[in-house]
Formats: sequence, C-alpha cells, structure tokens
Amino acid sequence: VIPILSIVGPSGSGKTTLLEALISLLRERGYRVGTVKHAPHQKSLDQEGKDSWRHAQAGAEVAVISTPAGTGVFQARSGEMRLDEVVESYLWDLDLVLVEGYKEERFPKILVYRRESGGEPPLNRGEGLLAVVSDVPLPLEAPLFSWEQPVRVVDFVEERLLKGKRGRERVQLWVDGQRIPLNPFVQDLFHSMLRAMVSPLKGIGTFRRLSLRLDNPEGAGRGQS
Amino acid sequence: VIPILSIVGPSGSGKTTLLEALISLLRERGYRVGTVKHAPHQKSLDQEGKDSWRHAQAGAEVAVISTPAGTGVFQARSGEMRLDEVVESYLWDLDLVLVEGYKEERFPKILVYRRESGGEPPLNRGEGLLAVVSDVPLPLEAPLFSWEQPVRVVDFVEERLLKGKRGRERVQLWVDGQRIPLNPFVQDLFHSMLRAMVSPLKGIGTFRRLSLRLDNPEGAGRGQS
Repeated sequence: VIPILSIVGPSGSGKTTLLEALISLLRERGYRVGTVKHAPHQKSLDQEGKDSWRHAQAGAEVAVISTPAGTGVFQARSGEMRLDEVVESYLWDLDLVLVEGYKEERFPKILVYRRESGGEPPLNRGEGLLAVVSDVPLPLEAPLFSWEQPVRVVDFVEERLLKGKRGRERVQLWVDGQRIPLNPFVQDLFHSMLRAMVSPLKGIGTFRRLSLRLDNPEGAGRGQS
Repeated sequence: VIPILSIVGPSGSGKTTLLEALISLLRERGYRVGTVKHAPHQKSLDQEGKDSWRHAQAGAEVAVISTPAGTGVFQARSGEMRLDEVVESYLWDLDLVLVEGYKEERFPKILVYRRESGGEPPLNRGEGLLAVVSDVPLPLEAPLFSWEQPVRVVDFVEERLLKGKRGRERVQLWVDGQRIPLNPFVQDLFHSMLRAMVSPLKGIGTFRRLSLRLDNPEGAGRGQS
C-alpha cells in the first residue's frame, strides 16, 4: 500500500514550504511523490479552471486543460472524493503521498510550527505523530527537527516510511478502488497467466505496462455490501 | 475506441457556449462526457492551482486539491501531455471526449461561427468537418445548424459518433497507453479467466470493477520500438 504522510500545523506555519522541500529532496532520491490538499471549506474551484471548470459545471465527468507547462484535470460531478478514491484514481503508482488538511485521519503526521506565525501549536494532534518541525521546542513525544535542515527530515521519512519502496510490485490487483495485496507467489502466477492470455493477440510484442479491467455493472460493490 | 469531437472556430465565436450545451444535453441522454482544452500558448497554470501548483513545481508527479465542489489534479512534471495520453490517463472510461484547440489534428470537427464576433471563419479547416453551427451560411460542405437548436446538433452527434456506445465493453486491455480491442469471444474468455484467477483470494466477493496491472520495466515499450 502506498504510504501517506500528513503535514499539519496552524495556518501560516510553513506547511507548504516544508512540503516543497520534502518533495524536491525526495525526488532527488528517486522517489515519485504526489500531494493532496484538502480544502473542506472551499466552495468552488471557479478561478482554478476557467473554461475547464465551466465544462465540469455543465456536466462533464472530467474536464482537462492541457498546456506546455502541464495538465490540469477537474472533476466536479462527483462532489468531494474520498482520499482513498483520489489515491486510487490519480496517485496509485507513486511511492509516497503527502497530504495537507486531513487532520482527523489517522495517517503518520509531521507537525510544523513557527513561533512568529502565532496560533497555538495543535498539541492535541498527537495520534500518529511521527516528527515535529519547529523553531521552538514543543511538549510532544516525537523527534524535533529544525527548519534549517529539511534533509534530516527527509532522512527520517525515508527510514520510517519508504524502506524498500523503490522496488514496487510488478502485478497489482484493484477491486472497487481498493488494492488487494498479492504475495510474491500469486504475483508470479498472475504475471505468467496474463502474459499467456495476451500472447495470441496480434499487435502485442514487448511492453512496459499492461492493464486488464473488468467491469461488472450488476455487482453490489464492496463499499456498499 | 472512445470517440473524440473537436470544436473549432474563431476566438469569441461561442465554442465554450456550444460545449456547455452539448455536455448538458448529452448528459441528459445518459452519456458520460469529458473535455480537453488545449492551450498551447499558456506558459503556466499558476493561478489555477495555488498550493497544488507549488507542489507540482517543486517536483510532485501529481498534485491534487480536494474540495466539496470537486477535485483538481495538476500534473506539471511531464510538460505537455499528448492528447492520447490525456485520454488514456483521465478519460478512458467515458463515452465521448469533446476537445477545443487541437486544430491540426484529424478528429471529426464542428465549426462554430458568429458574424458579430468578427474574425474570419476558418474555412480551411475542412478536413473531418462534421457540421457547422453559425448564424450565417458558410461555403462549406457540411450540415448547417443554428445556435438556437443545440438539441439538433446533439441528435446529429449521437447519430454519427455514439451509436451503440452506451453498452461498453466489459473487459478492456491496455498496453503502454493504447487500448487493444478485444472481440466479444476474447472478452468473455478473459472475463471468465479473471474471475477464476481472483476467486481463491480472500476478501473478494462481489465487485463492480477489477483491474489487474502488470509492469515490465525491462520492456522496450511499444512507442519506442
């Protein structure tokens, strides 16, 4: 399962700054990182998509803007997606997901704080606390890191969450948005069977990724049952 | 393969207005529609993602903002994605993709024009021209529709591009971003085999969608070979 690390702290305490440093350093080490920002009070993405957002509001399931600087994808129909849906839809093949704003969820957390930014440090967010990045000591039972040494935070995150993650499973099975873990024997078996199934088809020689999807509209769905 | 319909016309001629009408009416008829706007001269998505865009600029493969009004996904690392990559990544399970701005590509096109908006009607865009929506007749060999009757445009689009699309393939095979068509016999075979493969696994009862992915990092890739 893809590890999720939550960055928590008062507004203005430097969450995005820390996120940027973590992303950049993790990337240098070869990890593929995604982020999810939760904005539960934001009532619209109006300014963020212009025409694409108009398409989404008109009823498009997905509206995409494609530019030389990157791609923006807007999904309005579904309302708010659950984090696990977001991860399965957009982040499933990454090594780490950094999240901001899912305060109540039980992910491993890094608490950030700056005295000058004011606000009370959220000391009640102890559950799952992995580390603290702060310019003052806080009465919390977790390693304290300074703002000046993001490399040490990354060393710590790598040690705690990313050991061995760079070699990913070759075969992944997803059922209704949840990844079903496969042990190495079953992975090897599925790998051989998939290769055998597609080998008589024309036009398939070597490939990097193969994906076989099965839709069962009559199914009850796992979430509902 | 998912049909793609391109909306072309001078700036200010009503492309987004027509898109909104088409999306809304197609949705009423049960189709799932996606859109892609190509903005080849837009140098940044800065204002469209705020923090998420900072994450993407810092090196996140994917940056997501999740709100009650919907979800925005930003992908900057890859630069500009090819349209087929966009479709495979984000739009693969829809019935129709409406695109704006891919003028040079050979998709079926609807040309829109309004006399008052000025600009020359792009009469040289004849290739693949399916229909014209205009308040003045244009010397083009394609059916002319008025702005007042988008329902007729939708009837026409449905007739030409969407016949039988509502019953989708149950089993889809993707190899390196390209969908490999499967005839009904092979679909039935794969369906049975997938069910048989997963049936001994714990925790899988009924489901709506099952996806099995195989990664082969040593593969040459189809695009490169």
